[in-house]
Amino acid sequence: MDRQKGLDIVKGQLTEHRYIHTCGVMETAVTLARQYGADIKKAETAAIFHDYAKFRDKTEMRQLIESEGLPADLLEYNSELWHAPAGAILVKKETGITDEEVLNAIRWHTSGCDHMSILDKVIYLADYIEPGRQFPGVEEVRDLAEESLDKALIKALQNTIMFLMKKNQAVYPDTFRFYNKLVFEQRR
Amino acid sequence: MDRQKGLDIVKGQLTEHRYIHTCGVMETAVTLARQYGADIKKAETAAIFHDYAKFRDKTEMRQLIESEGLPADLLEYNSELWHAPAGAILVKKETGITDEEVLNAIRWHTSGCDHMSILDKVIYLADYIEPGRQFPGVEEVRDLAEESLDKALIKALQNTIMFLMKKNQAVYPDTFRFYNKLVFEQRR
Repeated sequence: MDRQKGLDIVKGQLTEHRYIHTCGVMETAVTLARQYGADIKKAETAAIFHDYAKFRDKTEMRQLIESEGLPADLLEYNSELWHAPAGAILVKKETGITDEEVLNAIRWHTSGCDHMSILDKVIYLADYIEPGRQFPGVEEVRDLAEESLDKALIKALQNTIMFLMKKNQAVYPDTFRFYNKLVFEQRR
Repeated sequence: MDRQKGLDIVKGQLTEHRYIHTCGVMETAVTLARQYGADIKKAETAAIFHDYAKFRDKTEMRQLIESEGLPADLLEYNSELWHAPAGAILVKKETGITDEEVLNAIRWHTSGCDHMSILDKVIYLADYIEPGRQFPGVEEVRDLAEESLDKALIKALQNTIMFLMKKNQAVYPDTFRFYNKLVFEQRR
């Protein structure tokens, strides 16, 4: 899909703040895709649409998770996780995007999983380090992203998991599977 | 089994340092069992034997994990995890202890799992806070143990998982499952 057309579509779905974030993710995803050999056009499209469902009603997302056979355990965990898999479904239904690689990158951009493609990783990391992000540790992950996609992701996941644990929150199983998989791959 | 007989058996399996640790776990486990309603005699026995296999040869433990049908993924993770399930098997084979509740407490004392009994939890926590343990955060867990078994365990697991992540190590899935289960139970 044409970049401007995509941006026009998501602008109608997002707050201004979230739209600016989306533009940052898009720029960063294109840079990372070029650097790490993901498809640049797919990275651009996945980034534009990654938060498509961010402001959908929770009841709608809950129904979607149930009716589309998404993992039921999502409903037990933080509802912040829902917009990613719900987004993949809604983007496919409502925008005509059918590329499964793009849809998977949207699907896994919040939880991760243990079978992330390079494109999936690029979108996950771009969402974490885009220029608008400001939180403790992000600069270290940006620096690592210059050197290694996987090392940057390991640090991002460590930060995320520790952040959740400090708030006494559960950690979605796919997130620690993603972390463990990356650690194992570093050992090889 | 008689306390002294048990201690005599494990003394032959352990270094002096580890034997002193075992005595500390035993005292703490009895206290916690009394406080939280686990069987005191079973807690004493499980504590005495919890590190029975700590100094067994890694090759022997690896073979045991394979031949006894223990989870094969254990072999991909830190070998520090092996002595707990291997210990449960060896204690049963070599000491005549057949009580499955005692053996389970030995089995889960390092990884945890998502179906920990009160006895399992008592042994896990006693192993973490016995008086000989000295590391950052242990005092906070000791304080929590006065108030709530599960709150103390959540803090212990947070410390353990963060410690592993700071060393860029993988975290065994059962450990995350134990943590998540405790967090979910707190919400109810």
